Amino acid sequence: MRKADKHLVYLDNAAATPVDPRVLKAMYPYFSEVFANPSAVHQFGQKARRVVDGARESVSEILECGRREIVFTSGGTEGNNLFILGAAHAYKKNGQHIITTKIEHDSVLKPMMRLEAEGFEVTYLDVAENGLVKADSVKAALRDDTILISVMYANNEIGTIQPIAEIAEIIKKRRGKKEYPVFHADACQAAQYLNISVRKSGVDAMTLNGGKIYGPKGSGVLFIKEGVQCLPQILGGGQEYGMRSGTENAPAIVGFARALEIAQSERVAEVHRLVPLRNWLIEGVLRVIPKARLNGDKKMRLPNNANFSFYGIEGETILMKLDLCGIAASAGSACSAGIIGQSHVIGALGSPEEWTHSATRFSFGRGTTIKDVNFVLERLPQIIKELREISPFGVL
Amino acid sequence: MRKADKHLVYLDNAAATPVDPRVLKAMYPYFSEVFANPSAVHQFGQKARRVVDGARESVSEILECGRREIVFTSGGTEGNNLFILGAAHAYKKNGQHIITTKIEHDSVLKPMMRLEAEGFEVTYLDVAENGLVKADSVKAALRDDTILISVMYANNEIGTIQPIAEIAEIIKKRRGKKEYPVFHADACQAAQYLNISVRKSGVDAMTLNGGKIYGPKGSGVLFIKEGVQCLPQILGGGQEYGMRSGTENAPAIVGFARALEIAQSERVAEVHRLVPLRNWLIEGVLRVIPKARLNGDKKMRLPNNANFSFYGIEGETILMKLDLCGIAASAGSACSAGIIGQSHVIGALGSPEEWTHSATRFSFGRGTTIKDVNFVLERLPQIIKELREISPFGVL
Repeated sequence: MRKADKHLVYLDNAAATPVDPRVLKAMYPYFSEVFANPSAVHQFGQKARRVVDGARESVSEILECGRREIVFTSGGTEGNNLFILGAAHAYKKNGQHIITTKIEHDSVLKPMMRLEAEGFEVTYLDVAENGLVKADSVKAALRDDTILISVMYANNEIGTIQPIAEIAEIIKKRRGKKEYPVFHADACQAAQYLNISVRKSGVDAMTLNGGKIYGPKGSGVLFIKEGVQCLPQILGGGQEYGMRSGTENAPAIVGFARALEIAQSERVAEVHRLVPLRNWLIEGVLRVIPKARLNGDKKMRLPNNANFSFYGIEGETILMKLDLCGIAASAGSACSAGIIGQSHVIGALGSPEEWTHSATRFSFGRGTTIKDVNFVLERLPQIIKELREISPFGVL
Repeated sequence: MRKADKHLVYLDNAAATPVDPRVLKAMYPYFSEVFANPSAVHQFGQKARRVVDGARESVSEILECGRREIVFTSGGTEGNNLFILGAAHAYKKNGQHIITTKIEHDSVLKPMMRLEAEGFEVTYLDVAENGLVKADSVKAALRDDTILISVMYANNEIGTIQPIAEIAEIIKKRRGKKEYPVFHADACQAAQYLNISVRKSGVDAMTLNGGKIYGPKGSGVLFIKEGVQCLPQILGGGQEYGMRSGTENAPAIVGFARALEIAQSERVAEVHRLVPLRNWLIEGVLRVIPKARLNGDKKMRLPNNANFSFYGIEGETILMKLDLCGIAASAGSACSAGIIGQSHVIGALGSPEEWTHSATRFSFGRGTTIKDVNFVLERLPQIIKELREISPFGVL
């Protein structure tokens, strides 16, 4: 294939989305025109302050929460770290037991491990074969000294949507009149396609990430319900109600707010557009490629996620062959700084090793068309066939 | 004065600088075009990776350090927190004594206070009346269990330039063949006007901030010398050699690098342009306004900083009156989230209270002209005169 002919297909939207032109337009005046420090008392500063306040208002309306419950951060990783480390330390006096799942993002799991090293005890819940966390398993794991539960709203690798509201209900009942345990949900992958009202879900804290919803990288929000304790992790001038110091990044804040507005207002239409495309890919792959399997649940699944395993081969080589065809996909999480290996999420699903090494994620986005999906369906079967002929497992 | 006539004079460049058009142009392609996750293995990701690598290369050349010694952060506050908390915890086994000064930024002082609460002992060095830290006072404070020293390169409020290289030399001698104590300098205000070669200064760690050097807010660099220990504070995918997790913010990283290139290449010319302007303001104010005083040293001072106290009046009202004239200045640090009160920096200079409440900072920038300075010289004397007539101190 000559380069000029190349049909480039970006199916890695769970790893990064481009900034929407409308978002970039909204951000633009705040780089060089209205640029002052929002904490400054002069008119230049006050103009910037109003811009940040406006964005906070907009985000709080979408989340159905108070403005003071919104903390602007530098992204999803910071948000998850802030709440997990901050809440654990704030409630340490009440207990040192934490519950999470085996399929969380590294920005949840790594802080958990640091807390374990400090003496906290962490229960990592198993998930079912389809990647779902059973609300009952949270119930069974709750103890009197449990202070924090963190369960992701939708999984970044296999797209599984967890029963967040049901889990929140169980925790609320158990809590009674106590202040703890508190419930955090990593909603970085959910904000584009699911309802993120915190009134509806009942979470006490929730992480959002601009870079996954067509907003700017380096932007995000941590929702912390009023009354929920959390110690700040970045200390200084006391911005963001003391929860996150550092000069407010007005363009990123405005961009995040605009991206969230667009994502949520176009959400239903986009879900209806993507679900048939996703199902077309899933059905096509499972029909055409022998010994292929869908990772994650078929129904409780993000509209933009398809993750497959192919018996007997390695994921990295699949990705490379796809890349040569101009198709960008991912092996599990792309967030792990270029490290390729078996995904801990796929590992937690309990399949035999011959299946787990080949997990390949296709994550759709606003630009994805039926043409793109058909291009994958045209190329992928041949790639798998060729790789099986040289499979290290020698099984096919 | 009618609004249309209004001559707006922004003299708060130490609080925030606009993004330089050349910087914004450099960033632009990385919002929506080359946007993929730099950790992704496909060609889209690799393109983004090369961009981040290129920026790292450029910054390391300016700092005269290795590429792996550069950690991209979300700004100065994060950088200071990362090194102070991270190094203190890393060297805790060797000792729990830390040295800093009374005039550091809150993003240094607040982490120090958290460390004190954890059991560390912090010595806060006095400064002289001119705001200078004596290298000998560092020498005298060093103990066998000192693990960390943090002294800012140039002060954000009074512009004082500290003898960083001399302090580094003393620490190096004391350290001998041990790994500690390590020396950190907050260079957020220095990068625009001073030589920031780490080979020249001999620091072990240094914080830079994009938002103060005509780069984007939410960008920064922490230099950490090879072999110096520091525990990461934001954990997850392991980006930035494990020191700072979270998807690399390519536009911010590119913008930071471009801003630093421009700042350093235009540095000498800009210093020569600003010093006479600054001196013109300083001499004019001290000549025309009775009982006015320059805060900070006259010589060891940033080229863009003039900070005055006016006997017997309050700084906040000065700022408001200046603002009404269209002049943006600041009372001490604008970074403290809108809180106005006596600055801890001015307080540390040891003047009587009648002087300290009126500290007013004018910080120049690329756009500052002689016309701006003359406008201040035209308005400020009248403002001070009026305020003295209603002074709460009733002394003049």
